[in-house]
Amino acid sequence: MTTTPQANIGVIGLAVMGSNLARNLASREGNTVAVYNRTYARTSDLIDQHGHLGLVPAETIDDFVGSLTRPRTAIIMVQAGAGTDAVIDQLAERFEPGDIIVDGGNANFTDTIRREKQLRAKDINFVGIGISGGEEGALNGPSLMPGGSDEAWQTLGPILTSIAAVADGEPCVTHVGHDGAGHFVKMVHNGIEYADMQLIAEAYDLMRRIGGSDTRELADIFTTWNQGDLESYLIEITAEVLKQTDAETGRPLVDVIADQAGSKGTGVWTVQNAVGLGTPVSGIGEAVFARAVSSRKAQRAAVQAITGPRPEPAPVPDSFHDDVRAALYASKVVAYAQGFDLIVAGAQQYGWDVDLSAIAKIWRGGCIIRARFLNRIVDAYQNTPTLQTLLADPYFAQAIAGGEAAWRRIVGTAVASGVPVPGFSSALAYYDTLTADRLPAALIQGQRDYFGAHTYQRIDKPGTFHTLWSGDRTEIIATPSTH
Amino acid sequence: MTTTPQANIGVIGLAVMGSNLARNLASREGNTVAVYNRTYARTSDLIDQHGHLGLVPAETIDDFVGSLTRPRTAIIMVQAGAGTDAVIDQLAERFEPGDIIVDGGNANFTDTIRREKQLRAKDINFVGIGISGGEEGALNGPSLMPGGSDEAWQTLGPILTSIAAVADGEPCVTHVGHDGAGHFVKMVHNGIEYADMQLIAEAYDLMRRIGGSDTRELADIFTTWNQGDLESYLIEITAEVLKQTDAETGRPLVDVIADQAGSKGTGVWTVQNAVGLGTPVSGIGEAVFARAVSSRKAQRAAVQAITGPRPEPAPVPDSFHDDVRAALYASKVVAYAQGFDLIVAGAQQYGWDVDLSAIAKIWRGGCIIRARFLNRIVDAYQNTPTLQTLLADPYFAQAIAGGEAAWRRIVGTAVASGVPVPGFSSALAYYDTLTADRLPAALIQGQRDYFGAHTYQRIDKPGTFHTLWSGDRTEIIATPSTH
Repeated sequence: MTTTPQANIGVIGLAVMGSNLARNLASREGNTVAVYNRTYARTSDLIDQHGHLGLVPAETIDDFVGSLTRPRTAIIMVQAGAGTDAVIDQLAERFEPGDIIVDGGNANFTDTIRREKQLRAKDINFVGIGISGGEEGALNGPSLMPGGSDEAWQTLGPILTSIAAVADGEPCVTHVGHDGAGHFVKMVHNGIEYADMQLIAEAYDLMRRIGGSDTRELADIFTTWNQGDLESYLIEITAEVLKQTDAETGRPLVDVIADQAGSKGTGVWTVQNAVGLGTPVSGIGEAVFARAVSSRKAQRAAVQAITGPRPEPAPVPDSFHDDVRAALYASKVVAYAQGFDLIVAGAQQYGWDVDLSAIAKIWRGGCIIRARFLNRIVDAYQNTPTLQTLLADPYFAQAIAGGEAAWRRIVGTAVASGVPVPGFSSALAYYDTLTADRLPAALIQGQRDYFGAHTYQRIDKPGTFHTLWSGDRTEIIATPSTH
Repeated sequence: MTTTPQANIGVIGLAVMGSNLARNLASREGNTVAVYNRTYARTSDLIDQHGHLGLVPAETIDDFVGSLTRPRTAIIMVQAGAGTDAVIDQLAERFEPGDIIVDGGNANFTDTIRREKQLRAKDINFVGIGISGGEEGALNGPSLMPGGSDEAWQTLGPILTSIAAVADGEPCVTHVGHDGAGHFVKMVHNGIEYADMQLIAEAYDLMRRIGGSDTRELADIFTTWNQGDLESYLIEITAEVLKQTDAETGRPLVDVIADQAGSKGTGVWTVQNAVGLGTPVSGIGEAVFARAVSSRKAQRAAVQAITGPRPEPAPVPDSFHDDVRAALYASKVVAYAQGFDLIVAGAQQYGWDVDLSAIAKIWRGGCIIRARFLNRIVDAYQNTPTLQTLLADPYFAQAIAGGEAAWRRIVGTAVASGVPVPGFSSALAYYDTLTADRLPAALIQGQRDYFGAHTYQRIDKPGTFHTLWSGDRTEIIATPSTH
């Protein structure tokens, strides 16, 4: 069977995300969408249900490629990893210079960098694109984080703009940067999502275990919070989850769900890359660790079997819930500040020209961390593109100052009550570290010089110094040790 | 020049660590040590100063190899990375089946696994060995963590035993496990070292900024602590560093050292591997992050420029210093528990048979984290080799219970006073997470199911479930989502 090129875009891989993305594309003016899946049953199901959208089904990869107009543009929506490589190879054999292969999966950005380089050698454009918003977003408007070349963006930009979520009249898509920039930023997005969810979970836990609120009251509190400066998708769905009653037991659903949190890998990547880049992302780190601890059932049981009675919840004033809200907000600012720092570090390391305010803009709609709050981040980086950290922005500095006392009270109460707040407390520790005139890091440098001759610098003159600790303890000018 | 084989062991790379190791080897009965360095000047310096030890100098790599008796055994002491690979290649070209190449540098264990596999194909034994103790340890007795094959251990074991530190009559060396096990365990050792140093730095900072003690008093306190259950090399040298006066200014040296802590990479590796293995090492993570924050000078300055007055130190009771000691001890137990968990996870992932009590034993002498405390860890794992976590050991559970109230008081005081305690507070959060009957991870699972159909498990029956959140909100039995 020969096919006539008619589709300006194709989607390969028609599981839920792929089908929804294809439907989204096909429902926008100007797009004709070719669809292909390894097993045809999925393709024919999609055509049966949504054929009226003008989808162009292909039974073989050759038909699929044949149905695409030039430059051929195909979005791969298959499992990240080896599956993606296999599909890329199939396309690369058939595509010609100038064509565009797009990976819409949750790829590791280092894979994206590798693939882009390989395909560039054949003059094929490779674009890694971060897609956030889940099934719903894919169908109705995701937040899109494409990397890749400027040439690819010329073709792809209008297509992606047509399907992206819209926030405050602006489409939630921007050309993030070259090669792996899109997947890197999507990784950071997910890392921030981990931190944000952990902070919300801690707020819930505090208000329930110390504040004594039940799930119904808590659902109302989160609904109220969602009308203020915490307004966000995650706060909104927290209220929805807390409202849900389990049909079988009549109990709140959250009480019958096993308290072991799973994860899919992007949080892990975020932490691995952050430490590699020397960027402290303690909020994300603690969130990843907290999920890991929750899943270690045998360990939890063993410790609980031997531990004495846990502390009683400390008595709290009427302002407790407001204090929790303030602590959550301040901790959230820290988590986002750390996430944006990581984007800066990644851009520097990999040579991407990333516009931080544009990133904050495209996260305002379609994605999991969409929030009113992001408008403030847009402002911060528009006002000062070279901002050292969000915490140095006047708006955020003032917001934190306003909640600082409450933040300290909440962490203090949690600690006294035995309610774990790794997110709140590490965010506060980060803030107290950044604001300290003087850190005990000086002692650490002294220790390192003592046991490993790692040398130190002085506050009063340039140079690198070493004390002859095992000698007469005089100080000498040193070159840094290399062992 | 032809050489007669006479040396049972050789050292390549004669910078401080290599020379000291060669001297250590040569001074023990039964060893004859060949030495080689790329530039001969270093070799001849060593011979000039320590030729009486019977060192066998080699001007060329061929001479070096020719001077070794069979099985030829050479320890490489050069910079980790490409340098090591180059030397391995030189030796591998000249060595024969059964010979042993040892890498004594701070290699990444994944490199060690790769190299071991490559050399095994030539029937050459490759042993990665973690060496801790710095220059001093290398000379007088380090803690040694060799990996590699059983065959290599037969030759290498007696040689290493001859030079290792001795603690309580036992040499600080054990065959950790195959291929990369030794370097993995050394990596964890260094990670724990990061955590331990951070905790000591926090204790110092608290007693200075809140407790009001000066460096002289603090040196005395650490000296006193070093006579109790905190007895350790790191506590000992903390006192030494705090005692030190800067000759130039007359001020305590710790006050003229720049408060930006450096690092050499093993802490980063530890965190990267831990998150990859799903093992929470928050104590090490916070320590790595704290060093990173301290080094971000521009960011610290920018935040400080905009932040209002910092909190006043909270008033403290006379028991404050004792409370700090208790908090330090409890936090330290957590850090070590997490580190040993990581060894368990690594052994499981890479198929190593690691004896945890043997690891605790060989860390009792020679290495940076040597401490009385490790005897308790030896006991814990000897009593219960399948111990789920050190925190479930009766001795440690009781020790923490005894200090728990103080630990909470200290974190509360630090938080109220604006003194950063990322290590103390994350350790406490970890403890409160492990001991919690019920975690808000259940809410996180609810959120994940809501936005990504990630499914959840229930507390009351087996299976995997999903609520149709955007439908009629009934619950269905589900297979885990794959996107």
